[in-house]
Amino acid sequence: MADKLYHGACFYPELWDENTIAQDIERMKQTGINVVRIGEFAWSKMEPEEGKIDLRFFTQIINRLYENGIETVLCTPTPTPPIWFSHGHPERMHVDQAGRLMNHGSRQHACTNNAYFRQKAAIITEALAKEAGRLPGVIAWQLDNEFKCHIAECMCASCKDQWHQWLEARYGTIDQLNEEWGTHIWSEYYHSFEQIPQPVATPFLHHSSLQTMYRLFESEKIAQFANEQAEIIRRYSDAPITHNSTLFFSVDNERLFENLDFASFDTYAPQAKMESYLLNCDVWRGLKKNTPYWVMETSTSYAASLESYANPHPNGYLRSEAVAAYALGGQGFCYWLWRQQRSGSELPHSAVLSTWGEPSVGYENVLQVEAARKEIEPIMVATKPVQADIAITYSDRARMFHLTEPHNGIEYKDLMTDLYKVFVNQGLHRDVLPEGGDLSGYKLLFTPLLPYVSDDYLERAKSFVEAGGIWIVGPMTGGRTKNHTIHTDRALGRLEEWAGVKTLFTFPMDEHTSAGQAFGKEAPLGLWSAVFEPAGAEARGFITKGVTPDKAFLTEHSVGKGKVVMLGSMPSGEEGKELVAAIIHHYAESAGVGVKTDVTAGTIVVPRQREDGQSIWVIVNMDGHGGTVTLPKAGRDSLNEELAEAGKLTIQPYEYKIIQFEKEGASE
Amino acid sequence: MADKLYHGACFYPELWDENTIAQDIERMKQTGINVVRIGEFAWSKMEPEEGKIDLRFFTQIINRLYENGIETVLCTPTPTPPIWFSHGHPERMHVDQAGRLMNHGSRQHACTNNAYFRQKAAIITEALAKEAGRLPGVIAWQLDNEFKCHIAECMCASCKDQWHQWLEARYGTIDQLNEEWGTHIWSEYYHSFEQIPQPVATPFLHHSSLQTMYRLFESEKIAQFANEQAEIIRRYSDAPITHNSTLFFSVDNERLFENLDFASFDTYAPQAKMESYLLNCDVWRGLKKNTPYWVMETSTSYAASLESYANPHPNGYLRSEAVAAYALGGQGFCYWLWRQQRSGSELPHSAVLSTWGEPSVGYENVLQVEAARKEIEPIMVATKPVQADIAITYSDRARMFHLTEPHNGIEYKDLMTDLYKVFVNQGLHRDVLPEGGDLSGYKLLFTPLLPYVSDDYLERAKSFVEAGGIWIVGPMTGGRTKNHTIHTDRALGRLEEWAGVKTLFTFPMDEHTSAGQAFGKEAPLGLWSAVFEPAGAEARGFITKGVTPDKAFLTEHSVGKGKVVMLGSMPSGEEGKELVAAIIHHYAESAGVGVKTDVTAGTIVVPRQREDGQSIWVIVNMDGHGGTVTLPKAGRDSLNEELAEAGKLTIQPYEYKIIQFEKEGASE
Amino acid sequence: MADKLYHGACFYPELWDENTIAQDIERMKQTGINVVRIGEFAWSKMEPEEGKIDLRFFTQIINRLYENGIETVLCTPTPTPPIWFSHGHPERMHVDQAGRLMNHGSRQHACTNNAYFRQKAAIITEALAKEAGRLPGVIAWQLDNEFKCHIAECMCASCKDQWHQWLEARYGTIDQLNEEWGTHIWSEYYHSFEQIPQPVATPFLHHSSLQTMYRLFESEKIAQFANEQAEIIRRYSDAPITHNSTLFFSVDNERLFENLDFASFDTYAPQAKMESYLLNCDVWRGLKKNTPYWVMETSTSYAASLESYANPHPNGYLRSEAVAAYALGGQGFCYWLWRQQRSGSELPHSAVLSTWGEPSVGYENVLQVEAARKEIEPIMVATKPVQADIAITYSDRARMFHLTEPHNGIEYKDLMTDLYKVFVNQGLHRDVLPEGGDLSGYKLLFTPLLPYVSDDYLERAKSFVEAGGIWIVGPMTGGRTKNHTIHTDRALGRLEEWAGVKTLFTFPMDEHTSAGQAFGKEAPLGLWSAVFEPAGAEARGFITKGVTPDKAFLTEHSVGKGKVVMLGSMPSGEEGKELVAAIIHHYAESAGVGVKTDVTAGTIVVPRQREDGQSIWVIVNMDGHGGTVTLPKAGRDSLNEELAEAGKLTIQPYEYKIIQFEKEGASE
Repeated sequence: MADKLYHGACFYPELWDENTIAQDIERMKQTGINVVRIGEFAWSKMEPEEGKIDLRFFTQIINRLYENGIETVLCTPTPTPPIWFSHGHPERMHVDQAGRLMNHGSRQHACTNNAYFRQKAAIITEALAKEAGRLPGVIAWQLDNEFKCHIAECMCASCKDQWHQWLEARYGTIDQLNEEWGTHIWSEYYHSFEQIPQPVATPFLHHSSLQTMYRLFESEKIAQFANEQAEIIRRYSDAPITHNSTLFFSVDNERLFENLDFASFDTYAPQAKMESYLLNCDVWRGLKKNTPYWVMETSTSYAASLESYANPHPNGYLRSEAVAAYALGGQGFCYWLWRQQRSGSELPHSAVLSTWGEPSVGYENVLQVEAARKEIEPIMVATKPVQADIAITYSDRARMFHLTEPHNGIEYKDLMTDLYKVFVNQGLHRDVLPEGGDLSGYKLLFTPLLPYVSDDYLERAKSFVEAGGIWIVGPMTGGRTKNHTIHTDRALGRLEEWAGVKTLFTFPMDEHTSAGQAFGKEAPLGLWSAVFEPAGAEARGFITKGVTPDKAFLTEHSVGKGKVVMLGSMPSGEEGKELVAAIIHHYAESAGVGVKTDVTAGTIVVPRQREDGQSIWVIVNMDGHGGTVTLPKAGRDSLNEELAEAGKLTIQPYEYKIIQFEKEGASE
Repeated sequence: MADKLYHGACFYPELWDENTIAQDIERMKQTGINVVRIGEFAWSKMEPEEGKIDLRFFTQIINRLYENGIETVLCTPTPTPPIWFSHGHPERMHVDQAGRLMNHGSRQHACTNNAYFRQKAAIITEALAKEAGRLPGVIAWQLDNEFKCHIAECMCASCKDQWHQWLEARYGTIDQLNEEWGTHIWSEYYHSFEQIPQPVATPFLHHSSLQTMYRLFESEKIAQFANEQAEIIRRYSDAPITHNSTLFFSVDNERLFENLDFASFDTYAPQAKMESYLLNCDVWRGLKKNTPYWVMETSTSYAASLESYANPHPNGYLRSEAVAAYALGGQGFCYWLWRQQRSGSELPHSAVLSTWGEPSVGYENVLQVEAARKEIEPIMVATKPVQADIAITYSDRARMFHLTEPHNGIEYKDLMTDLYKVFVNQGLHRDVLPEGGDLSGYKLLFTPLLPYVSDDYLERAKSFVEAGGIWIVGPMTGGRTKNHTIHTDRALGRLEEWAGVKTLFTFPMDEHTSAGQAFGKEAPLGLWSAVFEPAGAEARGFITKGVTPDKAFLTEHSVGKGKVVMLGSMPSGEEGKELVAAIIHHYAESAGVGVKTDVTAGTIVVPRQREDGQSIWVIVNMDGHGGTVTLPKAGRDSLNEELAEAGKLTIQPYEYKIIQFEKEGASE
Repeated sequence: MADKLYHGACFYPELWDENTIAQDIERMKQTGINVVRIGEFAWSKMEPEEGKIDLRFFTQIINRLYENGIETVLCTPTPTPPIWFSHGHPERMHVDQAGRLMNHGSRQHACTNNAYFRQKAAIITEALAKEAGRLPGVIAWQLDNEFKCHIAECMCASCKDQWHQWLEARYGTIDQLNEEWGTHIWSEYYHSFEQIPQPVATPFLHHSSLQTMYRLFESEKIAQFANEQAEIIRRYSDAPITHNSTLFFSVDNERLFENLDFASFDTYAPQAKMESYLLNCDVWRGLKKNTPYWVMETSTSYAASLESYANPHPNGYLRSEAVAAYALGGQGFCYWLWRQQRSGSELPHSAVLSTWGEPSVGYENVLQVEAARKEIEPIMVATKPVQADIAITYSDRARMFHLTEPHNGIEYKDLMTDLYKVFVNQGLHRDVLPEGGDLSGYKLLFTPLLPYVSDDYLERAKSFVEAGGIWIVGPMTGGRTKNHTIHTDRALGRLEEWAGVKTLFTFPMDEHTSAGQAFGKEAPLGLWSAVFEPAGAEARGFITKGVTPDKAFLTEHSVGKGKVVMLGSMPSGEEGKELVAAIIHHYAESAGVGVKTDVTAGTIVVPRQREDGQSIWVIVNMDGHGGTVTLPKAGRDSLNEELAEAGKLTIQPYEYKIIQFEKEGASE
């Protein structure tokens, strides 16, 4: 990929006639679209009859686009196997958790673990890579499309066999599995791997280990499929490979992207959920830290399908999204889709152009994006996001534990977004990292809602603390083992001892009858909670109401040059937000977190840096109300080349500004 | 049928002993019941063992009733095939959309497209027609009972084969289907008709064309079944044939009644939904315009089954319902049911008599109905409903499009009822017509929520306008093609050009952030909307808030002697009702609509006319609060023979009055 | 069982290592646990491979516990057949009402009517009884665990066959069944028993008789299974046999416990539902009137599973529960569970000890229970609960009728609890009896919500009234026959005539438009109602609003020395509670009910008696707010041996007191 900013759209030339395609290319040029994504649903066009593959339509389109200055992200077409694959072959299809066999007529109907599927997918992928892999227009590959967006774990017979093999590989012997899972409970005990059921219908709940392991198994399998596909492509193409994922599909993104080249994601968050949008940018930047991410799909105005629609974006918001995405580490900002569908299941979805070829309701906003892209491109290309002082761990594997054990309806992503918002609203710049993310250079690490803390994670966090970092742990962190059982030595296992606490009790706090106090704030406490007695640590937050009065829910323990802070409960409600904010604020101060601003809520500041160390701030108003931020010293407004004085700077609704400071950096 | 008013009840003599039947007939005579409906669930009594048909019980009952002055609507018993049909034959049974096979033990368990079912249904129907078709007591036939009231489309193997045949007949070649549906989307492309799935389980939504066509296919099939049945009956009987339908079953009533002789319907709307009751009367009058309809089933007090019940009607309401039904064009008003069931699934349902043979809680109301029927019969027989100046198009095929594409939960019937209420509350008399309804003689045509406007409809509407009519089109009208795809030339296809507008955008308006203004009223705008730029037309309503400010949502275009008015959005909330009312009022005035009154909401006025042109008004209070209406000139109160002076007339709670005017008509 | 109070916990030694077991036994002794329940899920440990039974682990544990002063309730392990039973044998598994086949991996997966299951269950039970039945530590047996807690009726092929046999045994001939059920309705008519379906998927509701009879059939079958098990055990053991049931499983407890030796129940009601807790105590005392019941399972603090949790009990409440349970007739008070699970589906559930062996959040409360148990044991052992003057009929068969016919969502247990609370709040001591409960010695009998009143019940109630009792009947009592049809002679059958009323109408009253008045109180009336005309009786409550004004909803009829009072409707809302309270108060006074106090709501008084007639009151505050009660004369506080003067006595939050009166009794 070139060192530039991409502004793109998803394009389905296989659905339109030559005349329409010609008009589309012309209009793309007018609009400033410099990249398209194509092919992900086009298997029936590429291989209309089994074995008869003809890709000329696509290679010609790619070349023609390239000649018009438009590059291509090329997709493998595997989410929608054609009718020759599906018809009369129920054994190749996905079976959902209710035992329902899926049929042809929508997408993701095939079981991606079916051997015949894998074989056919390899053949079409190889053909595509061979023919298009070295075309100059192909700058990147996308594997498949939104793995597991409509489906969760498959319960077909193919999966059953592979489940047994996976278990055998993981546990070695059935005795080992019985022991680790504790299967004598409810007489579930197994004599052989082949007896182990998939988590299909039972009168009451399945065993936690079985549930969580099945999720892990299936997420490993889809990652293996991605690996297979990527390997085939790499034989014929040097273009980097990605996949368009999200935070709520049934995948483990850290594992899925392990062997992929760059991260990309799809988001249709409406403005009301702008923190979710920002969280995505931070998550995907953190997943592949040295490579820019892409926003592969977002709507120009609103998402819709036959069965629902979202509200249109207010005018101005799209540009703020794009500038925020580029500033936070994105290289591509693409719409789904270029031209509104004329048929299918997503007819009403917003696009750049309408089905009949006219500008859509979002079109003016797309032009604004393009103008901004052009304006900021030189600065973006010359700078990179500054590493934050704060790292937050975000884990799809943690999410799997919560899916198995949702208590009273825990939604991992929603709770994480709530906690994330505390940082955003305080102007604290942060990186969001996967479990395996490198902790070097951070000052504060926050690890909430991670039921299973691996030895590896614990060791790295320990080193981080010993070297001077502050690690805030919890709530709901550490209480489960690798196999989703409960520790038998202490409530939180090794973590507990090392954090200088004894966990007296773990239990569900009722936010109507429980409360706690810390750093001068008092708030209700809720969710599954751990109550501590210091054993080396110092209590910093006390329970003021509930069944365990006067015990600690917040402790602080000095280890090496740093500190480990245990947060045992979730402060709730408006007061809860203030209490969490106070805790974060206190420890950010203690840790000497410097990459931060006093920007008002609804506006964001993204610090970036030139290679020579010169610092810039990208400031974007996201909420349409405008805001302010204090410049610690004078800088230059990079867009209008005017001086920006130290002190309060005002940002208009949906305005963005780029302030360039002198070399020694802004707030570092 | 005789030229009189029928007052009837559904009667199940097959469930009771001789003694009870004798009491029932005696009591019917006392109550004034002059017609019963029998037989629709009696297949097991008629043909207890396969092939052994004995109908003497029923012919004897019919004769005996006739001798007692009670006539009969005789039903074919096909909704409940006996156990000899069901037992051991899963292939004959209905399969629902979740793939569940239906079993014996309730009703509508058979697939009505199963060949064996059709054969057995033909045999019992022929036997019944032969033996009872010329009995003097049989004044009419009802086919089956409430087709598709509990079930929607069937997914059995018989249906699958016929689906493929139906598609082949419709499209000719698979290429044609692929092209019309646009099946390369999601690689759904088919090579042969037999590959096309039924809309059964898929991970995400089925294709819009497939969904809507499957609904059409199944509605065509049930109409064909009705045709077959009717043909058999006509060989042996001259009595007219109907079916008891509603507005919310999975049928296309316009098609279903095409070959039937008169319309009838069932309604259990409680008083709180009295507009729904009135809409029914208008719809069914409009469906068979030259023949009176029947209210075939309604409750004496409340509907109930084992699993739910409605609130009892307030005393007085039943009579208002009956008088309204007769006045609006009904000839029959029948209760479900005569005697409360002693067993089954509807034990608690209200009836005329209780299970133990005593008057039910609604009985006094039934006597009131009978007294009113007797009182108004001479006038009703001598007059007919006046054709309204206003026609509203109501379409079950439109409803199918909305079922496929419900956006955020669109309920066609509910939205239509809301719009219909605007007319009722303004005292505007209206006819409600099917898509194919004759537009001659109308001044104003309203076509809301009709996604697909057929060429035929468009041509007729055009002629109507050219001849001087005003046609109000929308909201949500015209945006879909015959095959449920989106137009590729303009948003609304030919309609748009002809209406003198260019549709700039179609998108979902958010009623919290969008608003519009017309005729001095401002209101939030919602639902899927079209925003216009006049191209010949004049803008009459402007958007005041939202993402497309200052554009038009209401336009008016002169064509020939008339006007076409495009309404692009749905005004919502209380202000929305006022805005719609202002629009309707304005164009009713412009169109010179004369059949109207100033009756207060909750009271209705039904204009009728003698053959010699003399006009009468039937005035009925429906809401129990009484009301007023201004008589434009003096008339005569036909019930008490007193003079009714011109000017304000007061109607007491649940009172009805018939005012007879001089020949030149009241408000014409 | 010894004449003492048991304080116990459910114990799963099969899941833990020797070291942990040793610690557990030690800790039990410290805690005061004198009984454990073991074995109910341990089939895979007892018979790991089919036919290889080895029970030594359990006999050794029982002996070891006994040596440590801890006795055992031993369970048969039948709720969780091992994998050798389940794997590859779908025909042995439960099939739910949606037709879903259950799989291994949770519990209650086997069909308990499967012949192979019964055979295997008999073998393991016999082996267990033989080896452990005479061990000194085994003081009682529990059959299985919570029959039908996760499942309702089974729809497998085994059940189908037995259903047909059961029907044949009940009805003799198919003609008889057709007649009693009235099957010509909807042509459901059957020619042979084998044609009769199970209540599986149909387009609309099944027949009421079929539904209710299927429930009865399945509840009879599970009782027969219990009988079989009990018979086997009795061959080898003299220890009494129970089962741990509840009020909301799919069983008929009266039938289930018919051949069992004592009653026990599980309850996890949180404090907010303390009346539900008390109702349980009264129900289970009444079920086996001469034998103390056990609280077999309750939480030390909160119930939880992977998918939900309850709020923890406030400190102090657990002891109040225990004292109330013992006082109301309980001999055992046991926790589920001793040590928190480390694996499975109920990891988060509260226990006495945590998974890691430390006191749980409820542990201090357990110690309080033990202190109280010790303190009150001598008095409890020396006294028995006084028979109340009031009996309330509680029937699981009535619940089955309401499950078949829930109208607008009737929940039998919830409505019964609401009515029960009226007695508790008035300080009226009451017995809650099954339908067959002995009515001797009572003064007031209350029979609400019993749709089918059997001849036997009616005769016994009649004798009760003739001898001077007051019987309050209704609401919703008597309107259905034995086979869940409607009476054809009168609305309420024989009851009606005998109660001196004619039921004019039965219909659903709408509480928004109906009201009634009695004893100076007026309230809305709701639910399915009967409206009366006195025919010998005297009207005592009149309808003031609704469709049947001035008719009676409450009548009183003198019969012999007593009275039968018909209550036709359910007073609703806050005013409804007052009206019901007024009715109960009035008739309790009339009946001369003496076993009562003026205790304030939230505190209870349990009257008990020594064999010599000396009376004591156990007073317990349950709501944590404290309360008062008037002592009618002086007594002695049995706990501190101080004098308790006549007059107002104050009870502190969660305090309990035992007041010993002089021999002539307190309030009798």
